[in-house]
Amino acid sequence: MTTTIRPAARADVPRILEFIRSLAAYERAPEAVTATEASLEREGFGPNPYYFCLIAEHDGRTAGYALFFYNYSTWVGPGIYLEDIFVEPELRGLGIGKLLLERVAAIAVEKGCARLQWAVLDWNTPAIEFYRAMGGEFLDEWRNVRVTGEALRRLATCGGADGACAP
Amino acid sequence: MTTTIRPAARADVPRILEFIRSLAAYERAPEAVTATEASLEREGFGPNPYYFCLIAEHDGRTAGYALFFYNYSTWVGPGIYLEDIFVEPELRGLGIGKLLLERVAAIAVEKGCARLQWAVLDWNTPAIEFYRAMGGEFLDEWRNVRVTGEALRRLATCGGADGACAP
Repeated sequence: MTTTIRPAARADVPRILEFIRSLAAYERAPEAVTATEASLEREGFGPNPYYFCLIAEHDGRTAGYALFFYNYSTWVGPGIYLEDIFVEPELRGLGIGKLLLERVAAIAVEKGCARLQWAVLDWNTPAIEFYRAMGGEFLDEWRNVRVTGEALRRLATCGGADGACAP
Repeated sequence: MTTTIRPAARADVPRILEFIRSLAAYERAPEAVTATEASLEREGFGPNPYYFCLIAEHDGRTAGYALFFYNYSTWVGPGIYLEDIFVEPELRGLGIGKLLLERVAAIAVEKGCARLQWAVLDWNTPAIEFYRAMGGEFLDEWRNVRVTGEALRRLATCGGADGACAP
């Protein structure tokens, strides 16, 4: 039984979307995925891609994926943010997730990145233990904040070039 | 007294580095900044910038900055990650931070981003209250994980193209 890791190609997009939906279901948010094959193709396989993706194949079958982009720290410069990592449930325990994470780490080092970062749900104990074993450090002093939807539009209305809500 | 928000130019790099160091000192990590004027110039003002920066000017004086990059959600597509936002201590309470955040939100909406996201230290109560007032939602179910330094190199050694540590 062999596992190989390769960069995703445009033809993998339908499978990537299946993986994304499976991961969202595992993360208890199956309805949160609004991405489509067309959006994933446009955003990942154009001239200035928003993301990069690796595919794991196990015995010739697509078994999982890792999807990342470059982020930036004003303290230490460019880094990699691992948005998604996922292995099909029936293929877990074979080291496939480890191979994916190692390949992302290798890309980070090749590109001169000082950090590889990601996020995990606090109830996902198997993942937390795996990440700790891989040398992951938990940044529990930091809280993530997000503005979306109507709140984002409201904030943006004030911040347009005409400074509509300026004091 | 007027505040204006404008995109940073290459000539702002020395001032941006001062702001970054001031913010790091406020965040109790003054020694963490390894960025230099040269690295900030290369990474933010080349053909494929890693980050974008806005400068706030108050009565003709640089008063603060917001620094961001584009991230990617496999659920909803491109977003903006606000890495830093900072206003000089003696100029707080004048709405300058709000103007910076509003302008970043306006850029997010202009670019079709569904989310604006950032992180805050859990003891930074004034910032937390400000973000909540701006419509920020706290994602406290998610824990941030990071691999850096020796742990990153070790992980990367296994993940090279030759798969040195493959099972």
